[in-house]
Amino acid sequence: MKELLSKFQQSVDINERQLERLFSAFLSTDDFWQAIPLSQLPFNLFVEACRELHKAGIISFEEDKVLLTEKGKSYIKPELFSSLNSLCPSCSGTGIDLKPWEKLLSEFKETTKGRPEPLLEYDQGYLTPESTISRIAFADSKGDVRGKSIIILGDDDLLSIAFGLSRLPKRIVVLELDDRLVNFIEKANEEKGLGIEVRKHDLRHPLPDDLLSQFDTFFTDPVETLQGLEVFIGRGIASLRDIGCAGYFGLTKAESSLNKWRDFQRILVEKFGVVITDILSDFSSYENWDYLLDSIVRDLPPLQHKPKVLWYKSSLYRIELVPGYRSFNEEGKGELYVDEESIVWRRREKRC
Amino acid sequence: MKELLSKFQQSVDINERQLERLFSAFLSTDDFWQAIPLSQLPFNLFVEACRELHKAGIISFEEDKVLLTEKGKSYIKPELFSSLNSLCPSCSGTGIDLKPWEKLLSEFKETTKGRPEPLLEYDQGYLTPESTISRIAFADSKGDVRGKSIIILGDDDLLSIAFGLSRLPKRIVVLELDDRLVNFIEKANEEKGLGIEVRKHDLRHPLPDDLLSQFDTFFTDPVETLQGLEVFIGRGIASLRDIGCAGYFGLTKAESSLNKWRDFQRILVEKFGVVITDILSDFSSYENWDYLLDSIVRDLPPLQHKPKVLWYKSSLYRIELVPGYRSFNEEGKGELYVDEESIVWRRREKRC
Repeated sequence: MKELLSKFQQSVDINERQLERLFSAFLSTDDFWQAIPLSQLPFNLFVEACRELHKAGIISFEEDKVLLTEKGKSYIKPELFSSLNSLCPSCSGTGIDLKPWEKLLSEFKETTKGRPEPLLEYDQGYLTPESTISRIAFADSKGDVRGKSIIILGDDDLLSIAFGLSRLPKRIVVLELDDRLVNFIEKANEEKGLGIEVRKHDLRHPLPDDLLSQFDTFFTDPVETLQGLEVFIGRGIASLRDIGCAGYFGLTKAESSLNKWRDFQRILVEKFGVVITDILSDFSSYENWDYLLDSIVRDLPPLQHKPKVLWYKSSLYRIELVPGYRSFNEEGKGELYVDEESIVWRRREKRC
Repeated sequence: MKELLSKFQQSVDINERQLERLFSAFLSTDDFWQAIPLSQLPFNLFVEACRELHKAGIISFEEDKVLLTEKGKSYIKPELFSSLNSLCPSCSGTGIDLKPWEKLLSEFKETTKGRPEPLLEYDQGYLTPESTISRIAFADSKGDVRGKSIIILGDDDLLSIAFGLSRLPKRIVVLELDDRLVNFIEKANEEKGLGIEVRKHDLRHPLPDDLLSQFDTFFTDPVETLQGLEVFIGRGIASLRDIGCAGYFGLTKAESSLNKWRDFQRILVEKFGVVITDILSDFSSYENWDYLLDSIVRDLPPLQHKPKVLWYKSSLYRIELVPGYRSFNEEGKGELYVDEESIVWRRREKRC
């Protein structure tokens, strides 16, 4: 293992624990896409590591499958690797009971039928309905929903519709740039009388004054460049009223290395001065999106096959305002949407 | 509500959300002790707030019960308050399936019968067996247990015995100051051949050189002053080998305000340069301890009754070493064990 690792580290920036988790993943599944969240590795690193393991004769590819070769099996002894089966089967590890929320879940599924599909242009991709409702249930358990003023910064998840159907918040405001989503939310809003205020807004620009310091809770699924995170979460904080108010957002391991996580946490606790109260690994799952294969370099056999499983997950963060917090509402500058950890990075690079 | 809050804030440092959560807690239970974790408030603030609510005629006490008065009921309308029942009933919200760990759990319970009871002198208090095994299951799901070198900094939870019985780690080292625990662990170790290395050590002093940079994973339940946290977690980081290695520890809301949480998170991500990968609220429950009533000021009726429920909980943190991390192994200075957020604070103050 040590020998393999040091050979490996000449071509891939991977640490021992990451390599072990990659092997654990391959022992748990032969599905390439499913192995990605199990390994907890960034997507681009996962792909590079697979390429090197293949070169070294440790794995082989068969369509969308990754198989351990005989040589691979001699390296990777199952007893040394983690059991990945300790997640509660009732809640898939989220800790949330969806039973009290079943009626809302089915109304939400019904109301969002025919919803607009994700576009690469806006870095879109949306949560499964179960993950959307779980986010509401979790926030409600923290006291951040009932009778509260809620703002949603970018809403391809259609979280605003779920909140509207729940009838729990006092006020629901959505900022969204994509006309298709604005129109879809408006239509549901009118048909069902959900009381949602929809505003077309590009989050690269500052929040309008009348939305500053108005809300109890914000929700967002930020773009995952460090600058994008700063802009999205900064605006969220700027929208909140006071100490004790909270924000919720997802952050992935697929497009953000733990180095980026640490740098982002520094922004949260140092620059913004807020506290992180919860980080729930892989709390949220995303539906697969059509543009995936067109947005990546398909230079390994499994990358030519659409995923059949939900593989793209995010960890749920909750932050809360504590005394001394600071908000951020400056103009977003530079490249907010893509960095070298983005799934689409290699294809962009190639094009240049 | 606003009026009540502003009147309240003249005598108690409480924010609107905290007051609402306190009311949510009273709507969910009439048990004083059970309401503490439900409210998420620090213990001392909870007690002060109860005193003021009692003065204002909003709650009344009957032995260990807290009841809403008629006036209280007119303020606190159930429909405005959070449902606190969204936790998965199978795993109590931990996300962990204990089924695969049942054999270990029962062996652990058997082996730790007759264990030493907590002493105030060492700020002791131990996890329930279920919480101990859940910690192992969670760490295993992250790849931090099997074949790994593990160090435990202070072990009133007897986590070392659980690890020994699991036969999963490569090496288990325990640092503990209390002779009773050292002897108990040694005895189980000999009788069952658990391969635990027990060393008597006071964690206020630096780790010995031969334990630096040796381990894959550390576990600790730190004392909760800011300086105590720095010393305990700093030593944990100093014991770890390399990038990718991880640490686990509990932090309560009962004895640490969110302001302290934020300041501690600054130490983690700025001073130590590590990343926080998980924060799981109320993941761990502690057994009730005998010295509780002797260590507090019993100036409200329910404070004269021993708790009948598990009320003292901690959130589980997982941190991981990323490039640029720094460890800390200096002599611990000043008061590490008690600050004004400690449960025992008011009694200490009174004594002085």
